[in-house]
Amino acid sequence: MDVGRLSLNQATVQHLTAIEAIDLCRRHDIAAIGLWRDKVTESGLDATAAAARAAGVHVSSLCRGGFFTQGDTSSAAAAAAADNRAAVLEAAALGADVLTLVAGGLMPGSKDLPLARRMIADAVAELVPFAQQHGVRLGIEALHPMFCADRCAISRLGDALDLAGQFPAAAVGVVVDTYHVWWDAQLAADIGRAVGRILSYQLSDWILPLPPDMLLGRGHLGDGYIDLGAITAMVQAAGYDGFAEVEIFSQEIWDAPADDTARVVKRRFADLAG
Amino acid sequence: MDVGRLSLNQATVQHLTAIEAIDLCRRHDIAAIGLWRDKVTESGLDATAAAARAAGVHVSSLCRGGFFTQGDTSSAAAAAAADNRAAVLEAAALGADVLTLVAGGLMPGSKDLPLARRMIADAVAELVPFAQQHGVRLGIEALHPMFCADRCAISRLGDALDLAGQFPAAAVGVVVDTYHVWWDAQLAADIGRAVGRILSYQLSDWILPLPPDMLLGRGHLGDGYIDLGAITAMVQAAGYDGFAEVEIFSQEIWDAPADDTARVVKRRFADLAG
Repeated sequence: MDVGRLSLNQATVQHLTAIEAIDLCRRHDIAAIGLWRDKVTESGLDATAAAARAAGVHVSSLCRGGFFTQGDTSSAAAAAAADNRAAVLEAAALGADVLTLVAGGLMPGSKDLPLARRMIADAVAELVPFAQQHGVRLGIEALHPMFCADRCAISRLGDALDLAGQFPAAAVGVVVDTYHVWWDAQLAADIGRAVGRILSYQLSDWILPLPPDMLLGRGHLGDGYIDLGAITAMVQAAGYDGFAEVEIFSQEIWDAPADDTARVVKRRFADLAG
Repeated sequence: MDVGRLSLNQATVQHLTAIEAIDLCRRHDIAAIGLWRDKVTESGLDATAAAARAAGVHVSSLCRGGFFTQGDTSSAAAAAAADNRAAVLEAAALGADVLTLVAGGLMPGSKDLPLARRMIADAVAELVPFAQQHGVRLGIEALHPMFCADRCAISRLGDALDLAGQFPAAAVGVVVDTYHVWWDAQLAADIGRAVGRILSYQLSDWILPLPPDMLLGRGHLGDGYIDLGAITAMVQAAGYDGFAEVEIFSQEIWDAPADDTARVVKRRFADLAG
């Protein structure tokens, strides 16, 4: 994968504002950035979009919509739907390649996973026409099964593909995140059937031991256990030619100077790209 | 599931010796116990077997063989094979229903998961004739994907079944552990095709947040997110009529008096059994 396809997800430099992260990419000649909605709101949507345009930094993804299972009342569902429509509008304003959807876990007080998954499918179906109207593609992200209860009941790439496959490929695809899917014995087969559906590719490494906060157990590319070269080759063989976003949640990396982090991210990605 | 099918895995009362745990089962009228090899060695194999017979407590499982991927030298492989044959002999001496196999993760220094899985399959194939000679059934346990790198590259029940299916059902089956497999969207389908292959059923609950040591994030039945009633019904519908082992790794439970733990385990299992 060409080093020009590197994108920096701003979660990797969590302590920067969106506009600071865009400027970091510009200074380090990183062509694209993955943005988070809370950070975009903080800097202002229009100001962030203008800063990205001025810097010549493309927005490879906006994270995130989803969390469709927060409640079973009509008002909770309506609030989630409204928030997702707002996310679509933000993605459109930013010209993001994809709006990433993290589906949500079990409903509060419920242990019914099949029900949660039906709610997710229904909510995606409801969102698709609005996203299509605004030219925003939706990317369903499978999260590691250790997040199934509380964050995302879509646990495998295959499950994300099965859901995306219910909608036109122009509207809905998947996000392949190495951290979440690397362990899956069906990964090669699932990436193989994902042709035309991969809307985003995200990279980080699996390190051990996991820290006390299991959301933060990620490492720089090459520091952990994932065969990133093999997975990247599969994603490329499936025809994906978009950006490769490095997204690392790590207190240690957040504590490092952002310019140092940008340098390490670039170097490790270049090593991977070969 | 009849309350008479309750078995207490001794990992739930980690601070007891094997013989103390057997006596705990006898006092609380728990018909069976799942034993661990280190504890059996500590109390002595013959003494433990004699204690179980005298107490009328059946050994529902011996944990564990496996860890087939510890090294790629012939001496490392030979040591693993010898240790697994010793485990078979111990399971035979204890009259255990199954020897549980935890396959092992990536080889040291390797990121090659397909290779690890081939090594595991080869090692099981090598062990099967010896196990058959000694009348011991091997149960392949899928561990949660968060343990893939370092403990078990068999991450889904379906993967365990595919591996077991390479051997006669009389020799090799699977262990279904709710903690490891509950999240899987294919779980119902996989249990459905596991008829005749389920050799052990283990229960604990998924609690959040995970503690700093992610091995210890389990809770008493009903304290977490798993729909244990639904999974138990699936396992029964697949014809499993063996013991249901409660196996909970939890510092909090280990810190509680063992008699209290036995009472809670029985009460929660009775609630589940209906």
